[in-house]
Amino acid sequence: MFPEFATYIKAQANLSDHDIELIHSKAIEKKLRRKEFLLHQGEVCRYKIFISKGLIRTYATREQGSEHILRFSAENSWTTDPESFEFDTPSSLNIDAIEHSELVLWTKDDLRYLITNIPGLKTYFDKLMTSSGSLFRQRILSNISSTAEEKYEDFVKNYPEISARAPLHMVASYLGVTRKTLTRIRHAQVKGK
Amino acid sequence: MFPEFATYIKAQANLSDHDIELIHSKAIEKKLRRKEFLLHQGEVCRYKIFISKGLIRTYATREQGSEHILRFSAENSWTTDPESFEFDTPSSLNIDAIEHSELVLWTKDDLRYLITNIPGLKTYFDKLMTSSGSLFRQRILSNISSTAEEKYEDFVKNYPEISARAPLHMVASYLGVTRKTLTRIRHAQVKGK
Repeated sequence: MFPEFATYIKAQANLSDHDIELIHSKAIEKKLRRKEFLLHQGEVCRYKIFISKGLIRTYATREQGSEHILRFSAENSWTTDPESFEFDTPSSLNIDAIEHSELVLWTKDDLRYLITNIPGLKTYFDKLMTSSGSLFRQRILSNISSTAEEKYEDFVKNYPEISARAPLHMVASYLGVTRKTLTRIRHAQVKGK
Repeated sequence: MFPEFATYIKAQANLSDHDIELIHSKAIEKKLRRKEFLLHQGEVCRYKIFISKGLIRTYATREQGSEHILRFSAENSWTTDPESFEFDTPSSLNIDAIEHSELVLWTKDDLRYLITNIPGLKTYFDKLMTSSGSLFRQRILSNISSTAEEKYEDFVKNYPEISARAPLHMVASYLGVTRKTLTRIRHAQVKGK
């Protein structure tokens, strides 16, 4: 788990071997079985989570039990509930595994310590935040301006791996369309080819 | 324009009079008439923009000319195109004035200089970024999980000022519902009261 993270982060950030050792010394490795939870709504999200293998979803549930996916996270990506993590407040989100997954976790205090002491890591997280903000803005614009067909096409184009691996009802939940609509769109596309 | 900003920022951040003077020395004041543009799609967004008076919209246009509003910004709030501002790339967004507006602008280099040299300002912008990310996540969850009625109710509850001041077709564009749907919702609410 940590070796995969080390390979990834060395390619992304300017870090010395000593930096990597320091980051390693604070890392917690964790495996999740399929459908196992890392965070339940109402708990405090204590970790910044790197996915070294597998597929994780971060989602909200509404009163009537429906699930609404904020984020899919596959290999070499991150998740957390940023507000809960930052302010130690109960999370309104759930995090669980769509596939058997391997994770590397850091607590807030440890992450702060690392970012303060490793400039290359700070630069990396600043970039990550900018790019994450950009993806959120693109998603909002897509949500308010695109047809269900366009939303699905964009999703497949931007996340081919995830669209191939996540169950259809989860993709529908992520896009904010009904499963029925998504099934119709996929049938029309198959016929169209 | 700057005096309104100074009143606002003193209440939000821990700043000395000298800090305020330094921030003032880099500030550019600007008035916009109603419908006047501050940024056209395709231009580089050179400023971080504080609204001291008025109402500004930040939006994308699609090929067929439809407008999709990413953000309304009233008094004591900010706007920019963060990617264009950060990377000097052509913006995909437009920024114009819904009402006569008064703005205070800073260039990227000046803002960086201020943030580096004024710790209280850095803390303020870190908090602003966290809270802006939180609002984006809430909006995405609302987009994918709420009915048009719920989206409008939430908007009125969260932004009573803006919902009273922005034209109906712009609120519809922000929510990603048709003007016809929004008119129907408002009629039903008036009848229900």
